[in-house]
This record gives sequence, structure tokens and C-alpha cells, in this order.
Amino acid sequence: MRYSLIFPKTQKNAPTGAESINHKLLVRAGFIDQLMAGSYTLLPLGFRVVEKIKDIIREELNKTDAQEVLMPLLHPREIWDQTGRWSDPDVKQIMYQFKDIHDKEYGLSFTHEEIVMNLLGKFVQSYKDLPIKVYHFSTKFRNEPRAKSGILRGREFMMKDLYSAHISEEDMYIYYNKVIEAYKKIFERIGLSIKVVEASGGVFTDKNSHEFQVMSEVGEDTIYYCQACDFAQNKEIFKGEEGENCPKCKDGKVKSAKSIEVGNIFPLGTKYSKKQNVFYTDKDGKQNPLWFASYGIGPTRILGTLAEVFHDDNGLIFPKSVSPFNVSLISLGKNEQAQKIHDLLEEQGIEVLYDDREVGAGEKFAASDLIGIPARLVVSEKTGEKVELKKREEKETNLLTIEEVLSRLK
Amino acid sequence: MRYSLIFPKTQKNAPTGAESINHKLLVRAGFIDQLMAGSYTLLPLGFRVVEKIKDIIREELNKTDAQEVLMPLLHPREIWDQTGRWSDPDVKQIMYQFKDIHDKEYGLSFTHEEIVMNLLGKFVQSYKDLPIKVYHFSTKFRNEPRAKSGILRGREFMMKDLYSAHISEEDMYIYYNKVIEAYKKIFERIGLSIKVVEASGGVFTDKNSHEFQVMSEVGEDTIYYCQACDFAQNKEIFKGEEGENCPKCKDGKVKSAKSIEVGNIFPLGTKYSKKQNVFYTDKDGKQNPLWFASYGIGPTRILGTLAEVFHDDNGLIFPKSVSPFNVSLISLGKNEQAQKIHDLLEEQGIEVLYDDREVGAGEKFAASDLIGIPARLVVSEKTGEKVELKKREEKETNLLTIEEVLSRLK
Repeated sequence: MRYSLIFPKTQKNAPTGAESINHKLLVRAGFIDQLMAGSYTLLPLGFRVVEKIKDIIREELNKTDAQEVLMPLLHPREIWDQTGRWSDPDVKQIMYQFKDIHDKEYGLSFTHEEIVMNLLGKFVQSYKDLPIKVYHFSTKFRNEPRAKSGILRGREFMMKDLYSAHISEEDMYIYYNKVIEAYKKIFERIGLSIKVVEASGGVFTDKNSHEFQVMSEVGEDTIYYCQACDFAQNKEIFKGEEGENCPKCKDGKVKSAKSIEVGNIFPLGTKYSKKQNVFYTDKDGKQNPLWFASYGIGPTRILGTLAEVFHDDNGLIFPKSVSPFNVSLISLGKNEQAQKIHDLLEEQGIEVLYDDREVGAGEKFAASDLIGIPARLVVSEKTGEKVELKKREEKETNLLTIEEVLSRLK
Repeated sequence: MRYSLIFPKTQKNAPTGAESINHKLLVRAGFIDQLMAGSYTLLPLGFRVVEKIKDIIREELNKTDAQEVLMPLLHPREIWDQTGRWSDPDVKQIMYQFKDIHDKEYGLSFTHEEIVMNLLGKFVQSYKDLPIKVYHFSTKFRNEPRAKSGILRGREFMMKDLYSAHISEEDMYIYYNKVIEAYKKIFERIGLSIKVVEASGGVFTDKNSHEFQVMSEVGEDTIYYCQACDFAQNKEIFKGEEGENCPKCKDGKVKSAKSIEVGNIFPLGTKYSKKQNVFYTDKDGKQNPLWFASYGIGPTRILGTLAEVFHDDNGLIFPKSVSPFNVSLISLGKNEQAQKIHDLLEEQGIEVLYDDREVGAGEKFAASDLIGIPARLVVSEKTGEKVELKKREEKETNLLTIEEVLSRLK
């Protein structure tokens, strides 16, 4: 891809009013643009990163036999009344609810439990129809009182939400634990180090849920975790103090940290199926409620988290797996050679961002650093027939033949 | 993919209240489910078709150097006030507009011209920044008074909308004509035969637009077209009668037909940039308004159109390029052989839907026909080591070796 085609180009200054690092850097680098508080356009570079995050999520969820769907965003009040959540004061604070010109009442999706259970109710009759695992990537709307942390907390954002329905609690937890493993794999592939943290169920369930937390000073959550074992609880439910012995392994000390929640999963149980009257017939002809669970990951919040966790004074630094391009390419007066390398890399399936603009070397280097592609190639008079390769996070450069470049990038 | 994993299975009966063929067949086959009037979930099979349609659109638009983005769906009133469309009586009928609990006014996206122009205004300064071509696949909301034609006319649906901005009318039309060619290619690849039809600009522009129409008795549009040349106009603007000589080639006769609009493109001119105050500086330092155009295609409406155009008494018949799977596979008591063929096809990158259920042969054949995958494989006692291949729209069957099957399906 030629950088001249990409809209928009990098900016020298952060937008006025931007407070968080992810907001400043992602706007300056041309990944996002703010439409209004808490609402952002994914620009071409940001879109590419989110697509890569989505593909990783999709691949790992498909391995659990989950099926991708797409559910509506505009919901009729009646279905939300079935569980009483329409009128829950906590829900009314964050769910956009309104009447249309014909006085019909709608809510905008802030989650999809009721809608999925309604769907299941139309098709599930027997134990033979279960389990069911469906997910979608779709827009969520939450009227957040505070929307100052860039794309970490938006009023409109993208979420992957997965729902599973089962014949028993045991079957639900078998799949629930499978999803925990899938999530670990997802975050590992994205390059984020996470902690699996016990938390409260919020407006979703009375049971404890599990959060996937990335430690970061800008996080809005506080977690308590053991230095020795995998014990970790959200501040809301942790009954103890920092420095205590771990209540699980009794050995390590409990520490606290700020963190960003990038995923959250809920063992919802039979609350939704009972309230929405969705039952299945078991082998003995008896009617039983469905066991239900939901599982969220925020791809746009992950983009924000990557910006917070991986950057330096010069800009973003993307992990390979989710970088908008595999490599950036800069020509200093050797456009013909650069174009040939660009074409060759694309032929080989290597995504290259070639800065073909007629601007100074300094501007090209600054843009490449700001965008944060993990590898950079330069061709100039100095490099001759060879190509200079530099990793984004290192100072060292290597003068290589094009064949050597290809084998390193593959 | 094993069919036992797919949610839901085919249904014998169409849903009560369904009037249109696409609604009946797509629900029965398990492609869509109706949440409320005009609002549908894309179920796994429907989702797969829409993804293939999207990929074709994406590939052809990327060839025109357009860039994919994702824009918000919830819009602040202020931006829509800039063009006056917020208060346009025609717009107020179809745009969902509401106040949140803090009395802030929002509208749900029924299109994105104002939002794109607002975005361009932040970045475009000089003629060097143009042209710009951005598109996204996103949800559109339109409070349609009548929503009875399945996914042909939804209140919530998916649209691909592309926007281009240019320095001059000439440059705009060069790209506009390029998009016409891209659209022709897109519909050809999808397997739909279209007519490019002149039409009015509706609530978008005073200029004529172009519609991409598929002739069908269930279409809500009426077009007048020449039997000899490419002349075609929508009823709204055609000044003449059926049977007349063509006003363009003077040779052919004008005929009329019902049709479904699957795409629509608008040469918007400078109306939006002038009203929203978005200007660029030309080579002589003069300020000029941007020339703007927008281009829509409805992937979910295309799914509905495919159902209307390609079906028989037994169900859907998908064109190869957008079928949810390349081939269906039925085992009549030879599950081991079927599983081997399934694995082999998947290894070779051939998407196979293997009906592994413990149900009768009749039910499997009926499901396969209803879903409409263009090729079907059967293994049974009768076929021995070989495999029976049958095309969905033909009666004839062929007994082939697995190698022959592979080479035919590739």
C-alpha cells in the first residue's frame, strides 16, 4: 500500500482536549478520529488493526465450535421487559432508550443476553438441540457518564459477544473453562499479558464473573493478585489488604495494581431462561431451564490498550500479529527501487506501507515511528543495492540483501 | 463443517405472517430470524453469505484505491443541522431521532454524508489532500412505514457506503464512472444480472443518481429500459410510455419491468461541502468547495434478492461465489467414509457442509435442497468407494472417484 493513498496522514499535534495517551497517539498517527465524546471513527490504519484483532478472536472461538452471527442493535422494549432489566435503574443510566414517531419504545444494544435468549426460545425444544454457541462482532452503545479515556471507554464501541446455552451447570462450566483457555490464547496472540480476575457480575448476574485484565497505570480497575499463584480478584469483591498472604496458595503475598479490563465472562445460570420462559425437554420428558453464559471482548478497547501499553516518545509500537502493516518502507531519493521492493513484498503476501510522498526524510521517519509498524526498511544512496532493516523498538540497523529481508519478514 | 453444529436447523414451515419468498425461504433454511418487523438476525448460514458478498465488494472497491473505515452509528444533531437534513420532513419520517437522559439530541445513521464531510473538514486543507475515497460496511436504521418484504426492506440493515471527495466536477465524474464499472463487476461476480438506471436523487441531491436494479416481479421499483441499448430510467423521472422508441438510440422499443434496487450512487456535487463549510486551497491559493459523491450497496438486501431470484419449489439455489458452502455432503449409513471426505475437502480449502445428523435420508436431502448449496455429494452402500455428485439445479447425478470430485469442485 502506498502511504499517499491512506487517509489521513499523521499529525504533529494531539487534538485539544485529549487527555489519555491512547487518544493522543491514535489520533496523531491517523488511526481514529473523535466524532463526539466517547465516539470514534476507525480510520484506515485503525480499521486494519481491529480487523486483525477480530480475526484472531474469530479463529480461536471457531475452534470451540462457536458460530458467527450478526444480531440487531435496535431492540424492542418488550423483550427487555421480560427480565426487568429495561426498568433497572443501573441499566437506565447507560442504555439509550427512546420512542419513535409512532410511540414504539426501543433500546440500543448495550449487550445482547435478552435478544439471544429470545432467539433460542424460538428454536430450542429438546436436549438434542443443545449446546448452542453463537457470537457476533457488533456495535454496543453505553451512555457512560465519563468518556475521557479515548477508546478505552466509549459510548459507542465494538464488542465481540459470545453466548452459550447448555443442558446443565456442569456442561456450562466445561464450556466456560474452554472459553477461558481460548481467551488466554487470544490475548497471547495479540501480544497482551493478562490476568484472569474474579469479579462481581454487575447488572448481568448475581454469580461471580471473570475479567481479563491488562495491568496498566491508566486502568480504571484495581485488582489484587498473588505474586506466587494465579489468584486474582477485583477490588469490588476482594476482602483483604495488600501485603497479606494469598488466601489461595497461603504462600505468596497479595499485591494490588491498576488495570484495564479487556474481556469479561459471565456464568449467568438459569436466571435468563427462567425469566424469559425458555425451557428444553430432557431425556425423561421433563422441562428444564437452559443454562446460559455470556463472554465479551472489546476489540476497539484492545486497540486503545495496545496504545497505552506499547509506545515510546516517538509513537506507537505494535506487536507483529496486529500491526496495521508487517513493514514500512521509506525511499530517500530511490523511488524506482522502492517501488520494486513494494511490489515484490506484496507479491509475497507481506503487507508493506510504502511512504511514497514527496516530503523530507525527517517527516517520513517520524511518520513511520509514530504509526508503530514493528519493522522498517530504508533504501537510499547509502544503502546501494541493499536495504536497511530496523526494528521499531531497537536502535541497531542491518544492511541486507532483498532476499535476506524477505526471509526475515516471513 | 458438521451440520450438527449449525444453529438452527431447517424448518418445515414458514413463519406465520411472512409474506415474501425471501422471508419464508431464508427463515425456513436457517439463514435469518426476525426480531421484529424489518429487523433480522443473520444466523450462521446467512452470515456466511453476507461475508462473501462483503468480500467481493471489498476486493473490487480496494482496486479503485478506496480505503475501508468504520464510522459511528449514533450521530449528534448539530452535524445534521449543518445541512438542514435533521429537520427535513422526509428525513424525520425515516431517521430515528431522540434525546438521551441528559437531553442531548441524537440521530441513528440512515446514511453518513454529513458525518464524512465533517471528518473531511478536519483533515483536508490543500488540493494535495484530494481525492479521498473511504467506505465502510455498517448498520443503517430507517423507520420504514412498510416493512413486509423480508430483508429486501429492513428498518435495520447492513449497507456498504463509499464516499469520495474531489477537486473538481470532472475528477468526481471520472471516479464516479470507475465505481459504476466496479459495481458492474461486483454484481457479475455475485451472479446477479443488473441494469444501470437513471433516477432522481431523493433526499440526497437535486442531481440525477444511478441505481443498480435487478429485474424481479417482487421489486418495489418500476424501470423503463430500451431493448436495444443501455438506456434505462426509473419511473420517477421517465417521461414517456412503454412501447415508444428509445429516446437514446431511437431504435429499440422501451419496455417496463418491476425491479429491486441493490445499489445506488449519487453525484452530490458541492452542496454538502458548501453547507458544512469544507473547502480546499487550490494551486493558486484560492478556496474551493469539495466535489462529493456517495455510493451505496446493501449486502443484506442482496441476500434477499438472491433468494427471490434463485429458488425453486425445494428451496434456495445459490450462485457458487456466494453460497454459504461450496458443497454439501450426505452420508447414508457411511459416516466413516463421509468424515474422511469431509476432512479431505477441508484440507483442500473446499468449504463443505457435512450433514452428520442421525435423521432419515429424506430429511437430509430436503435440508440440502432448501439450503441451496450448488453441489451435493452423497455416499451410501450404492456408491461403494465412489461418491455421487449432483448439481443443485440439475436432475442428473454422476458417480465419481474422490479425485474426480476434487478436480470438479476446485
